[in-house]
Amino acid sequence: MRILLLNPNTTVAMTDRMMAVASQAAQPGTELVPATAPRGVPYIASRSEAQIGGAVVLEMLAERHRSIDAAIAAAFGDPGLMAARELFDVPVVGMAEAAMLTACMLGGRFSIVSFSPTLAPWFKECVEMHKLTERCASIRTLTGPVEDVVAVQEQKEDLLVELCLKAVEEDGAEIIVLAGAPLVGLASRIKNRVPVPVVDQIIAAVKQAETLVGMSVRSASVGSFSRPGPKASIGLPEALCGWIGNDERRAVQLDLVNP
Amino acid sequence: MRILLLNPNTTVAMTDRMMAVASQAAQPGTELVPATAPRGVPYIASRSEAQIGGAVVLEMLAERHRSIDAAIAAAFGDPGLMAARELFDVPVVGMAEAAMLTACMLGGRFSIVSFSPTLAPWFKECVEMHKLTERCASIRTLTGPVEDVVAVQEQKEDLLVELCLKAVEEDGAEIIVLAGAPLVGLASRIKNRVPVPVVDQIIAAVKQAETLVGMSVRSASVGSFSRPGPKASIGLPEALCGWIGNDERRAVQLDLVNP
Amino acid sequence: MRILLLNPNTTVAMTDRMMAVASQAAQPGTELVPATAPRGVPYIASRSEAQIGGAVVLEMLAERHRSIDAAIAAAFGDPGLMAARELFDVPVVGMAEAAMLTACMLGGRFSIVSFSPTLAPWFKECVEMHKLTERCASIRTLTGPVEDVVAVQEQKEDLLVELCLKAVEEDGAEIIVLAGAPLVGLASRIKNRVPVPVVDQIIAAVKQAETLVGMSVRSASVGSFSRPGPKASIGLPEALCGWIGNDERRAVQLDLVNP
Amino acid sequence: MRILLLNPNTTVAMTDRMMAVASQAAQPGTELVPATAPRGVPYIASRSEAQIGGAVVLEMLAERHRSIDAAIAAAFGDPGLMAARELFDVPVVGMAEAAMLTACMLGGRFSIVSFSPTLAPWFKECVEMHKLTERCASIRTLTGPVEDVVAVQEQKEDLLVELCLKAVEEDGAEIIVLAGAPLVGLASRIKNRVPVPVVDQIIAAVKQAETLVGMSVRSASVGSFSRPGPKASIGLPEALCGWIGNDERRAVQLDLVNP
Amino acid sequence: MRILLLNPNTTVAMTDRMMAVASQAAQPGTELVPATAPRGVPYIASRSEAQIGGAVVLEMLAERHRSIDAAIAAAFGDPGLMAARELFDVPVVGMAEAAMLTACMLGGRFSIVSFSPTLAPWFKECVEMHKLTERCASIRTLTGPVEDVVAVQEQKEDLLVELCLKAVEEDGAEIIVLAGAPLVGLASRIKNRVPVPVVDQIIAAVKQAETLVGMSVRSASVGSFSRPGPKASIGLPEALCGWIGNDERRAVQLDLVNP
Amino acid sequence: MRILLLNPNTTVAMTDRMMAVASQAAQPGTELVPATAPRGVPYIASRSEAQIGGAVVLEMLAERHRSIDAAIAAAFGDPGLMAARELFDVPVVGMAEAAMLTACMLGGRFSIVSFSPTLAPWFKECVEMHKLTERCASIRTLTGPVEDVVAVQEQKEDLLVELCLKAVEEDGAEIIVLAGAPLVGLASRIKNRVPVPVVDQIIAAVKQAETLVGMSVRSASVGSFSRPGPKASIGLPEALCGWIGNDERRAVQLDLVNP
Repeated sequence: MRILLLNPNTTVAMTDRMMAVASQAAQPGTELVPATAPRGVPYIASRSEAQIGGAVVLEMLAERHRSIDAAIAAAFGDPGLMAARELFDVPVVGMAEAAMLTACMLGGRFSIVSFSPTLAPWFKECVEMHKLTERCASIRTLTGPVEDVVAVQEQKEDLLVELCLKAVEEDGAEIIVLAGAPLVGLASRIKNRVPVPVVDQIIAAVKQAETLVGMSVRSASVGSFSRPGPKASIGLPEALCGWIGNDERRAVQLDLVNP
Repeated sequence: MRILLLNPNTTVAMTDRMMAVASQAAQPGTELVPATAPRGVPYIASRSEAQIGGAVVLEMLAERHRSIDAAIAAAFGDPGLMAARELFDVPVVGMAEAAMLTACMLGGRFSIVSFSPTLAPWFKECVEMHKLTERCASIRTLTGPVEDVVAVQEQKEDLLVELCLKAVEEDGAEIIVLAGAPLVGLASRIKNRVPVPVVDQIIAAVKQAETLVGMSVRSASVGSFSRPGPKASIGLPEALCGWIGNDERRAVQLDLVNP
Repeated sequence: MRILLLNPNTTVAMTDRMMAVASQAAQPGTELVPATAPRGVPYIASRSEAQIGGAVVLEMLAERHRSIDAAIAAAFGDPGLMAARELFDVPVVGMAEAAMLTACMLGGRFSIVSFSPTLAPWFKECVEMHKLTERCASIRTLTGPVEDVVAVQEQKEDLLVELCLKAVEEDGAEIIVLAGAPLVGLASRIKNRVPVPVVDQIIAAVKQAETLVGMSVRSASVGSFSRPGPKASIGLPEALCGWIGNDERRAVQLDLVNP
Repeated sequence: MRILLLNPNTTVAMTDRMMAVASQAAQPGTELVPATAPRGVPYIASRSEAQIGGAVVLEMLAERHRSIDAAIAAAFGDPGLMAARELFDVPVVGMAEAAMLTACMLGGRFSIVSFSPTLAPWFKECVEMHKLTERCASIRTLTGPVEDVVAVQEQKEDLLVELCLKAVEEDGAEIIVLAGAPLVGLASRIKNRVPVPVVDQIIAAVKQAETLVGMSVRSASVGSFSRPGPKASIGLPEALCGWIGNDERRAVQLDLVNP
Repeated sequence: MRILLLNPNTTVAMTDRMMAVASQAAQPGTELVPATAPRGVPYIASRSEAQIGGAVVLEMLAERHRSIDAAIAAAFGDPGLMAARELFDVPVVGMAEAAMLTACMLGGRFSIVSFSPTLAPWFKECVEMHKLTERCASIRTLTGPVEDVVAVQEQKEDLLVELCLKAVEEDGAEIIVLAGAPLVGLASRIKNRVPVPVVDQIIAAVKQAETLVGMSVRSASVGSFSRPGPKASIGLPEALCGWIGNDERRAVQLDLVNP
Repeated sequence: MRILLLNPNTTVAMTDRMMAVASQAAQPGTELVPATAPRGVPYIASRSEAQIGGAVVLEMLAERHRSIDAAIAAAFGDPGLMAARELFDVPVVGMAEAAMLTACMLGGRFSIVSFSPTLAPWFKECVEMHKLTERCASIRTLTGPVEDVVAVQEQKEDLLVELCLKAVEEDGAEIIVLAGAPLVGLASRIKNRVPVPVVDQIIAAVKQAETLVGMSVRSASVGSFSRPGPKASIGLPEALCGWIGNDERRAVQLDLVNP
């Protein structure tokens, strides 16, 4: 199966690191296809950046969805996730969603640990979007300035472990979710320093994308997650405009239903 | 005061109608400035269209926010509202938000009445975004096809009144909120056929924008609704790229605080 | 339009101060009419005092509602608000309600800041009554004794600013609502010392009362906020007894509906 | 022990009936003391009537609390309950509260069944006040006109049984709470026609009042349910004014604590 | 009436102490019948122990339910309570349930105070099971090791009082519930050292069991708390197997309904 | 990896069917190990049966947990799940939990569809245990008698499809979860007759068990899901008694932490 690892940020080094960790976790037969946002910001960290980045996710999927079996929206706040799930027929998994739902199977309440305080409100809204507030013990972030987003996990490993321990001791966290693309891969390195399970977001996302493909469910043809009817548009990129406007899907779907 | 009436849809006739109704409700001294989305879809009606439209809202505000006192995001699901409130320093009011909060002061629970079933899930998420679920008695929509979005309120007036009455009788609605830009202006025409208050969304939005300007509060300089720090970006429209990237705001703000 | 500024407390100096601040915020054409409770306590600060004061609100409105366009129940816990909204046909706005709903349009979560700890539980119940718990970051109050309720805002300005800052820093408040009639007018004085918007309760109440009148909605004739059917009573003040017992309203309403 | 059965309605026949049923359920040694509201309406059925009636509850308790061990606020919506619990040192039980909490021990979710639709919104707010929304399956009421409140349980027994059966079958009610003073005593008559437990509100109230006295707990001297500090007032009935204004309680309390 | 005091723990000394306190609170005519778990652990303190202990509760009740009028599941987390309430026709009261519901009538929010941190998560789930989360201000426990469960209330009385005071001062507790069978009887000893009501769990349980018997309600014959239909089983103790498998109940019930 | 497929019911034919479907979905390298409850009831369908069956789950795991990498509690209400997760160090996945969390990644709200009304209240409590109430659109079950639990999916296929369609059309279900061991395998047969994704519970469980093993997280050594300290017990099966009583785990764990 082919799984698109779609990075809504414009930083290629981040995509590379996610690919490296994800590849080790993928099952035999899974091909991971990387893609980095061609426009937007280096690292999405607020509502407005997520609003823009989520639209870019749709543009990127419009170009690639026909050649993949599933996609991962590989940014922790899940920008554009629900819009993508509605608009396209392939399964789309959010990196935050996958990490949090996987965490749920390992205990009662998880804490989200990340590296910058500006992320916390956005992550909180992501937890609420998935209706997981009651499962979330806390969101904790480092407070100092972040000099290099790509290197932050190495530079601040000890502080992040300390944060995990505080989440466990003071907030009652029974699982830790390390959050934010820059922290991908850190879980395996610190897991023996933290006394509860630590979830790696990109590994969770790959396993959940594999799960959805392995379920071989059909996509919805009615309801709020079915593809909207064809609609004219102006000023959108060609592939997105085409997919929003065209009705070729109905023919495809009938073939699937009555082969 | 100058209030931007920003229509995230690309249909100019819709902007015109909203301007006509809004103008009658504005207090003396309020100048309404219309703007219609230069790219996107004629009428936003789903998550993916709102994801795109919300990004367009940011682009439009980036060009205009310096010359206005407040803005109205004039589409009922409030696309881009929280992102805009975070990114810009002028007050931004959502048309759904204004209508629902105003309704709260007229009774206990409101029902949202609109013309197309595809809108309901998006509107429901909008209610949840504003944490008003407990105040919302129901969302009811017509079920037939909509031939002409601009004319729907005239063509289906009787059916819409019937829907209002059902919301009152079966769902316990104590206020009706007519939802969706195409229904602007309908409230005054049907209010004597519905036995509870009927809120007009654009009138509510204008009055609330005036209220916020009248409060003369400052914008937040800390917290999740303060403008994010300067950030490089690629591929964004010039005005948006400039506002996201530039740090001129800090100087401006200091001037405001210590004039 | 004529708006009744109804103070459920018996302290005239409090009414005077509210009138002074409210007058500056009212739009041209708004006439504010003051009224001070003829019986009850100098300053309502608990459930039992609000139970009594809320009944006094009804007595006061029974005497005045025919000559006004809207009323403000000008005590922060909104004593008698829902009862008044049910019983009378004019719009009635609560000072807490108006302040909190206005705050909602300026960010995500507000904190309520006040001067006495005895107020906090009552204010919490007020937040719950309006179903705004999820929008309320915290309720913070000073802890020392209050020697002079009327002068408390001058005497404790610095401590109150400190409290606002703590709400922002420790509770994540994105808006501050200064609560309690004795704090009316303080917002404009401290707004440059607090890094998020500060809402003045009486200004919010005046603007929202103007909004409701400007909406020109009809009052409910069915549902839980429609006037109860005529009922005999014993021992109530004459105007209240008359309004509860009499059925003259139906005639009036028919006139409004079919002029 | 002496338990005050306080009827906030002005209808003496209602008090009499409640006394008759309550007396049969009281344990040996319990003396029930009846009191009927001297002012107000014959039967409280709305928010505004409850606002007034709740204030009357305080007036009545101010005159009687020194000579009783506990009190029952014997109207289903619990008017004035929390105010009374705060202001007086004797335990005060609400008839709705007692019925609903007792119902909780007999299954999962209860339905409230009553005789008039105007009661439903008020009862719903009562359920919310006690934070029992998740335990309440539904509120069902008869819809026809009520000619004689005192005789309604005999006249409409069959319709009320039908309502109970619908609550069980359609709403999943696992317990029925018959609500409203006029239905006191009906439970024992219909219990064999309803396939789940039926709670009689006044019996529940008497047993719970006995329970609270039997627990011999002290009253709170701190917190939101401790008696507010002494306060001057104007225009209140003598006993209430005296209790609100006087500080004799502190002496009494010290005696209790250090006998 | 005969009330079974069923201790799901295997410690007889604990049963004895509960009997001693319970006997003093029982009304004349109440006979308390003790029973101690014949298998399981000395003191249930976790989910897995409660899973096992709850099954033992069913085994014990299967042997005794025919000769009693009500039962108390006398362990604070209420192991097996809902299963027992479903399976048997006599009222079954949980010790936690009784204590918490009784506490609700004495104020707004209670805190649970106990002696070991391992109990807190289990007690939290118990609060959630009863849907009382909004009424629970906090759960506080001592942190040191517990050398002797039976003697802990004497050995740590001062620390427990301190915990109560912290719950009142820092968490806003308006009532204290002392939790865990080893703390039975402590309430009366410390009540003058704590400024809010302190509920004794076993006294609450006895009074509530008496209340349920005093209500003389019938058991449910439909719904999720009616006895499941007869079912074959293998490997269960004889009395439990017999009650699960046999249909004698229907005859008994008809006799009760139509005597 | 070795995954235990643990059936808490005593029906071997049910285990066989689950093995058949699960085997087709397992990835290469996964060995599924079946186990059927040696005591209990043929098919768990109520709280009391789940209380007993959950204890049996612990007994079965005590015998097998050392030779497996993960376990599936293969009954839809997840009997004993949280207790097992607490007591043992291997990951344990509930069949309901896995199905529901997987469903969450395919849309907004799922409906649970099953074959007997007696299951609905138990399944509802399972949804609540996992805090997924907001994600659950409805629980729908057939109403007629079930003659043969093992054959019900063939006998009532058409009725079950009809139920799925009603859930989609009337309840807004965006995903269907077929619930109850007897419906395992049905999803693939009906998926083209239902216009939204249909989740097969055992396939979801296998994929999620594989996911957890693939995450290679450590088990918790602190918090409420860490193994309780050693405890004496009486009357429990030997393996369970040994695991509860023994402290050999600590040595093992240290080896894992510091290899």
